[in-house]
Amino acid sequence: MPELRQNPATRFWVVIAKERSRRPHNFIQAKPAMSTEPYLTECPFCEGNEHLTPPETLAYRRGGQSNGPGWWVRAVPNKFAAFVSEGNLERQYEGANFFNRMDAVGHHEVIIESNKHNEHIFLMDDWHVQEVILAYLERYEILHIDPRCKFIIIFKNHGLSAGTSLEHPHSQLVATPIVPTDIRIRFDRAAYYYDDTGKCVYCDIIREEKQSGERVILETDRFIAVHPFASQVPFETWIMPKEHSASFGLITMEDAKAFAVILKTVLKKQYIGLHNPDFNYIIHTAPVKDEHEDYFHWHLQIRPRLTTAAGFEMGTGIYINTAIPEETAQFMRGVQV
Amino acid sequence: MPELRQNPATRFWVVIAKERSRRPHNFIQAKPAMSTEPYLTECPFCEGNEHLTPPETLAYRRGGQSNGPGWWVRAVPNKFAAFVSEGNLERQYEGANFFNRMDAVGHHEVIIESNKHNEHIFLMDDWHVQEVILAYLERYEILHIDPRCKFIIIFKNHGLSAGTSLEHPHSQLVATPIVPTDIRIRFDRAAYYYDDTGKCVYCDIIREEKQSGERVILETDRFIAVHPFASQVPFETWIMPKEHSASFGLITMEDAKAFAVILKTVLKKQYIGLHNPDFNYIIHTAPVKDEHEDYFHWHLQIRPRLTTAAGFEMGTGIYINTAIPEETAQFMRGVQV
Repeated sequence: MPELRQNPATRFWVVIAKERSRRPHNFIQAKPAMSTEPYLTECPFCEGNEHLTPPETLAYRRGGQSNGPGWWVRAVPNKFAAFVSEGNLERQYEGANFFNRMDAVGHHEVIIESNKHNEHIFLMDDWHVQEVILAYLERYEILHIDPRCKFIIIFKNHGLSAGTSLEHPHSQLVATPIVPTDIRIRFDRAAYYYDDTGKCVYCDIIREEKQSGERVILETDRFIAVHPFASQVPFETWIMPKEHSASFGLITMEDAKAFAVILKTVLKKQYIGLHNPDFNYIIHTAPVKDEHEDYFHWHLQIRPRLTTAAGFEMGTGIYINTAIPEETAQFMRGVQV
Repeated sequence: MPELRQNPATRFWVVIAKERSRRPHNFIQAKPAMSTEPYLTECPFCEGNEHLTPPETLAYRRGGQSNGPGWWVRAVPNKFAAFVSEGNLERQYEGANFFNRMDAVGHHEVIIESNKHNEHIFLMDDWHVQEVILAYLERYEILHIDPRCKFIIIFKNHGLSAGTSLEHPHSQLVATPIVPTDIRIRFDRAAYYYDDTGKCVYCDIIREEKQSGERVILETDRFIAVHPFASQVPFETWIMPKEHSASFGLITMEDAKAFAVILKTVLKKQYIGLHNPDFNYIIHTAPVKDEHEDYFHWHLQIRPRLTTAAGFEMGTGIYINTAIPEETAQFMRGVQV
């Protein structure tokens, strides 16, 4: 019997299609191999090719000149930015004031995770992943001072089917001049829950998941990784801080390092268990002015690209998930890294 | 300068990435050819293979037995249904009443558009497309009597990247026991607009689009096809009835036939102009109990699969569109069919 499940935080429903479901190991994919070359002449993100990017906004380096070699993590403005730093913040109505538009003012940066073309986050040393997370945090902290930035999102696209065109390991950070409608919806729902119960719905999810245990992949001192009860896609994973905090921007150095370690471990389990699937990850965090809210709770969401959303998902927002989260979680717990 | 645009009906924003944008003809794709065989032994939807599907719920035929050859449009239950007709409608909480789940009770049907494997909707005769639309309507009318069905969605997935596994031309109809959260959001927003202005926001969109004309692809007596101001993806198209109506289920026979003709014409323009892109289309319509609302307006949305949504879209709901709707509309107006 297929089952409708509701995500307690977003109120969105999914169908867990038990009859159509595949066993976890059936999601293992044959994939074109990644490049094994550490350097490609034409790659703008490889060390030595710094002249192919706009000037850096951050670099962790062992000496050497700005915008030259010698770094291990580097941030640069996106050359094909969807949001740019100069422009008009006014809403401009057209058509008898009917259609609403504005300049896409903001920031759009690329965080290059390694100087090597073939050094992926799930294969790095822990210290290096920690430096990537610290780079996220440092750029977040600088950009969130800009009063025009209402929301900052950090995400990673890995692989062609996840929407990336450049194989060289990188993440992106976008600061937007509006709070996206999707975020307002998430916030409203968490706020209603808080008003009704006096509690953060995400804290309650953590409590319930710990208690049942069957969807937990990994738990550390400070973080927990689960396949959510109402996962939208097979092997969807949430990594959440166990202590309440609305914003990734408020993370301590110590917690940032612990977060890097659990993130790397979960991604490595996925890399080994599913044979390097394409994936996206997204840090869901509070809008800049809501960093201290009691009702939202930052978390990182991983969405492997193992299936294709189609007309039903687009028309209803209800995902049909052909894997059972309790089974995929058990599978992932068993993957040794 | 990239531009933020807001859809007046859904309030969702998109970025029209003008600097990154490609000219309309750059979206033309080299695609693997479709099968040219009218019949495949293993295809469950080909005429003569009726024993490979569950018993039909509808067939337009020139004689012959039920579940045998002789038909041109046929509907059957989906063999791998995400919603099934037997089950419990009660919400079942688990984990100290925390997680909400229920049986996925409803209907999930396939509407086989042709008895031939290679006869696609954009290449059919008009009368045949009209029969497909009448089949949608007939199944809608029968299923909406079931009091357990709160919402009915009709959609089509064309091509592998649009999420279909079977090439034989078909659409799907799903009846759900809940009103999906996405639909509630669309409805709320349209209702607020109505409460503020006394008008249907979709009727207002039609008026504005007709007045400017630059995003209109095609207009007939009863329908209009546009590339929306805030298109989420390149060549996104909406076909809307010019007269207010909240539900596809209330369409007259005459209008259904006119709708079939404009749908076919728009899809054929897309087939010719973009070289048979993969696409989804979705009929957005009112929940069953809201068929007579003044503030919602049914429409068909076509989403060609020319680009890939990535972490930014998933995290914010803001799509980055690399085509300019005014340019793509002009291109499509020029495609002769």
